[in-house]
Amino acid sequence: MSTKVLIVMGSRSDLPSMEGCMQQLDEFGVEYSVRVLSAHRTPNAVLELSEKAVENGIQVIIAAAGGAAHLAGVIASSTPLPVIGIPIQTSALGGMDSLLSTVQMPSGVPVATVAIGKAGAKNAAILACQMMGLADKALQQKIVEFKQAQAEKILADSYVE
Amino acid sequence: MSTKVLIVMGSRSDLPSMEGCMQQLDEFGVEYSVRVLSAHRTPNAVLELSEKAVENGIQVIIAAAGGAAHLAGVIASSTPLPVIGIPIQTSALGGMDSLLSTVQMPSGVPVATVAIGKAGAKNAAILACQMMGLADKALQQKIVEFKQAQAEKILADSYVE
Amino acid sequence: MSTKVLIVMGSRSDLPSMEGCMQQLDEFGVEYSVRVLSAHRTPNAVLELSEKAVENGIQVIIAAAGGAAHLAGVIASSTPLPVIGIPIQTSALGGMDSLLSTVQMPSGVPVATVAIGKAGAKNAAILACQMMGLADKALQQKIVEFKQAQAEKILADSYVE
Amino acid sequence: MSTKVLIVMGSRSDLPSMEGCMQQLDEFGVEYSVRVLSAHRTPNAVLELSEKAVENGIQVIIAAAGGAAHLAGVIASSTPLPVIGIPIQTSALGGMDSLLSTVQMPSGVPVATVAIGKAGAKNAAILACQMMGLADKALQQKIVEFKQAQAEKILADSYVE
Amino acid sequence: MSTKVLIVMGSRSDLPSMEGCMQQLDEFGVEYSVRVLSAHRTPNAVLELSEKAVENGIQVIIAAAGGAAHLAGVIASSTPLPVIGIPIQTSALGGMDSLLSTVQMPSGVPVATVAIGKAGAKNAAILACQMMGLADKALQQKIVEFKQAQAEKILADSYVE
Amino acid sequence: MSTKVLIVMGSRSDLPSMEGCMQQLDEFGVEYSVRVLSAHRTPNAVLELSEKAVENGIQVIIAAAGGAAHLAGVIASSTPLPVIGIPIQTSALGGMDSLLSTVQMPSGVPVATVAIGKAGAKNAAILACQMMGLADKALQQKIVEFKQAQAEKILADSYVE
Amino acid sequence: MSTKVLIVMGSRSDLPSMEGCMQQLDEFGVEYSVRVLSAHRTPNAVLELSEKAVENGIQVIIAAAGGAAHLAGVIASSTPLPVIGIPIQTSALGGMDSLLSTVQMPSGVPVATVAIGKAGAKNAAILACQMMGLADKALQQKIVEFKQAQAEKILADSYVE
Amino acid sequence: MSTKVLIVMGSRSDLPSMEGCMQQLDEFGVEYSVRVLSAHRTPNAVLELSEKAVENGIQVIIAAAGGAAHLAGVIASSTPLPVIGIPIQTSALGGMDSLLSTVQMPSGVPVATVAIGKAGAKNAAILACQMMGLADKALQQKIVEFKQAQAEKILADSYVE
Repeated sequence: MSTKVLIVMGSRSDLPSMEGCMQQLDEFGVEYSVRVLSAHRTPNAVLELSEKAVENGIQVIIAAAGGAAHLAGVIASSTPLPVIGIPIQTSALGGMDSLLSTVQMPSGVPVATVAIGKAGAKNAAILACQMMGLADKALQQKIVEFKQAQAEKILADSYVE
Repeated sequence: MSTKVLIVMGSRSDLPSMEGCMQQLDEFGVEYSVRVLSAHRTPNAVLELSEKAVENGIQVIIAAAGGAAHLAGVIASSTPLPVIGIPIQTSALGGMDSLLSTVQMPSGVPVATVAIGKAGAKNAAILACQMMGLADKALQQKIVEFKQAQAEKILADSYVE
Repeated sequence: MSTKVLIVMGSRSDLPSMEGCMQQLDEFGVEYSVRVLSAHRTPNAVLELSEKAVENGIQVIIAAAGGAAHLAGVIASSTPLPVIGIPIQTSALGGMDSLLSTVQMPSGVPVATVAIGKAGAKNAAILACQMMGLADKALQQKIVEFKQAQAEKILADSYVE
Repeated sequence: MSTKVLIVMGSRSDLPSMEGCMQQLDEFGVEYSVRVLSAHRTPNAVLELSEKAVENGIQVIIAAAGGAAHLAGVIASSTPLPVIGIPIQTSALGGMDSLLSTVQMPSGVPVATVAIGKAGAKNAAILACQMMGLADKALQQKIVEFKQAQAEKILADSYVE
Repeated sequence: MSTKVLIVMGSRSDLPSMEGCMQQLDEFGVEYSVRVLSAHRTPNAVLELSEKAVENGIQVIIAAAGGAAHLAGVIASSTPLPVIGIPIQTSALGGMDSLLSTVQMPSGVPVATVAIGKAGAKNAAILACQMMGLADKALQQKIVEFKQAQAEKILADSYVE
Repeated sequence: MSTKVLIVMGSRSDLPSMEGCMQQLDEFGVEYSVRVLSAHRTPNAVLELSEKAVENGIQVIIAAAGGAAHLAGVIASSTPLPVIGIPIQTSALGGMDSLLSTVQMPSGVPVATVAIGKAGAKNAAILACQMMGLADKALQQKIVEFKQAQAEKILADSYVE
Repeated sequence: MSTKVLIVMGSRSDLPSMEGCMQQLDEFGVEYSVRVLSAHRTPNAVLELSEKAVENGIQVIIAAAGGAAHLAGVIASSTPLPVIGIPIQTSALGGMDSLLSTVQMPSGVPVATVAIGKAGAKNAAILACQMMGLADKALQQKIVEFKQAQAEKILADSYVE
Repeated sequence: MSTKVLIVMGSRSDLPSMEGCMQQLDEFGVEYSVRVLSAHRTPNAVLELSEKAVENGIQVIIAAAGGAAHLAGVIASSTPLPVIGIPIQTSALGGMDSLLSTVQMPSGVPVATVAIGKAGAKNAAILACQMMGLADKALQQKIVEFKQAQAEKILADSYVE
């Protein structure tokens, strides 16, 4: 594995919510790999993946899960790398369960939580690149340009008749 | 370890909330052991405890945690034993975070969730004994008597002048 | 009645949400019977069912209801058996009402609450078998195998291109 | 029993929250009796009380409970009398659990729910008198006067310097 | 106006939610009239309706509104009659706004609140009849029979194969 | 009455929460009068006050209430003046009930809602002056200076050692 | 720019929710301009717009945004003009996130918040006119007539057969 | 300014909640500076700080705010650096307002959100170091050791008699 970002999601059904994450990493030219693993159904595989992330060259781990969303927290327990958590929207509670399960981590083990659902998925990719941009000035520059392009696009289409 | 019930809590600060659990097990004459372990700070120890619970003779595991309360879920991931989750009350959100993190488990890995805080702690003990009572008629009889005594006490003091 | 698990639901409209519960019990080869009864519309029938559950050979009762979901609590009031509560998803509040009505039981009368809706329904079946597995090693072994199969299925399909 | 209003509360610890209810009935000169009974710990006593309420001359039943507050709903299941539910404030969730458990009754079995806590307790007494006032014009007149006096008291002290 | 129950709703768009209310009153043979009025858009008309309700022979007022649902509270401010509030389900917050605006009345002015939406609408009719049944034994008997029929229908169809 | 801002609060117990509102108006040199009136206990007095506000020279009405907070909405129903609503913090639900009852007004009758509690009380005064500042350039200038002073005070004390 | 009301929305996708706002201003004959700008993607453009609003002759600014809805607050930070905030409904949390992000402003910087979604959009227009009506008696008279017409329309169609 | 982490908080009253953040950075030997600035009261100073952060050598920005907590979002709008948001606990809503205002950012502008209050404050420091550890192996090693020490401390005191 030579990828820098590891994306883990709790269920294959989370893939449609996560597409924006992969697209954004593609756009920034960052290599990533994607795994479907469950904190509750495959706990040892998750821990092993997490424990070996540093030696595998991973720099940031993005974890997406819904409901009692433990995936990001379990991964964060076993790596010194920054872990980004995406709360997946849920049908019963809209994702409030996913959000609280992801963000309310006890002191000592942070999860960098982004917004519920698709906005969060895309933002997780940007946040991962912001982190890696600390040491990779070319990547940081891409973020600068991304933000400029984003602003320019809005400004160009800002007037409503 | 010859105890039948294993109580795990995420933090030593949860002990006051958990006293009713231990007292109730004492009252029913059920042996238990208590461990303070964190799903996030000692993940391997939690998994190891969980994986060895059956061979250690444990019958029911009670797990109490607050906030992004993953303890019960992580334990449930690695044992065929029933796992009871107690959501600890929290200062910011009252325990709504603990409750949703404990109860909203994905299909395949249940956690038997009880009420937030002290009522839940006592009830976890009773629920554990109800489970063990399926094979231990003497214990089931104690529950019958507990419920009768509880009702009689209320009925004896039911009238308010 | 020679069944071991009694499933009670508050309304015939809960049946689609509950199918996973029955399928999971079928898969584990556990006999069950299903009743539609309402804590509010047929209270005496519910209490009678609950009071006679032990002598009828029932080991675990699963109760599903929505809104002011009193069914599991009323059943738990009248039996020493463990009672599992499934909060049914509701259109107005998503099932938050069902969840709080089911889980926030007072001390002395626990309800083993699982997740809102279909995930909870399937998990109630697994939890019931985990309880019965304490005295039925063949059933406990089925749970071990179920968890292994579940993990293997995820691991076999874990990589996303 | 010759009282017209029956007040039932789930726990003796609810008494301080309920004092305004009794005081208001005293003020209106309405006789009442008070019982501490639990839907979950003394279900048969609750049902029996409810089933005999009509023949005992009760006209309105007021039920106060907290958490998974089933008391009003269980009483309402077994009487044609109007049942008023008071959600008791709770430490973890403020009484949102009590409120939803009391008000979200299924169709066929209403509970006339009032506000959480002390405001609700006093209002339950007024509401009971409004109901009985339909057939008791002297009592209805007392409510008219109560509302006038309440308004006059506010108006007399309405200006803030 | 010779009707006994006055139904007021805040908007003509609430009619579909309210049909069960009218049907239930029809079933009990109780006469009612229906008005669409808004506490916020026609405040004087609402107050006038409320103030004249007693002399018009009204016995119970049912008010349905959504969002900042003030209709029931405003009506309750100006009549000694019991007022039943139905919180209409809302698209943004599911009706939590309607519920809290209806039920959390200050001490002195109760609103008898029922469940959000259609279940509440039907229950409002039953509750109104329970109130009027205090002085109308024939109506009270209809409620007894309604509850029996309701229970019998459930019991007749209680077994699920 | 020659005051420009009319402050109405639902209960004398709201005064401590409201002090910042009066102090801020004093600071801006804006005259105001304060009334304690209840939408539910003195509905006609509230409507009369509201209906006469324009002819009494009032320019903005500030209304503060808690729970099922109808005061601002009832006032807004009967005046073409802008009405600012302050949701008072409540012990059971923190003020979520007050907030939703104040802000979720139906189309046609806006209430300009500010934050729950003391921050909202002070901001209501500022907002009222912003509105009056549209026609009173001296007052608008005071707001400009208030904002500058506020910023300068923060900047002067911005560094933390 | 000679318009009096400036409408800013965070995203072009908010336009359908905002149509009622523009229609209502059209109905009142008030000129407005509409901009799509983002507090997060074009912060300087937002601040510049806000800082120049007074000199551009703007009297009221209406800002609509969803999720972590900072638009109204950022605008309010940089103008002495009154700012009205419309919380846009969101798919995950219904708009509770938008509402709290808009209304819970710290003391010193109010945002006049209206209801979530379309009702709020229309009401923002009315509220803006109420504010401008303080100095524009013709506009204030239009609001009086609008309220009368609104009431008459309801009263004309008030009876439901 | 030669510090690597910039801590900004919305109010000096947030300092007690933030002490754990500074202590943790001290423990890791990471230099930081602390500023009290408000997104709403000093918007230009916040934007200027944010825009100059890269050239000032800042690597990570930590922003803490309560209520309509826009500070982190406003900072994130104007820098390519990763921004960590700490939702401050609030008296009315416990910090739910702060959390949603911080985490629910629109796509394009992420804020790495941590838990409400003190746990979040400490975790923000750890998360910042995890990010900087991507390029600073000595710092990453300190995190590895911190996690080991944390685990060992728990394991050493894990048994409760």
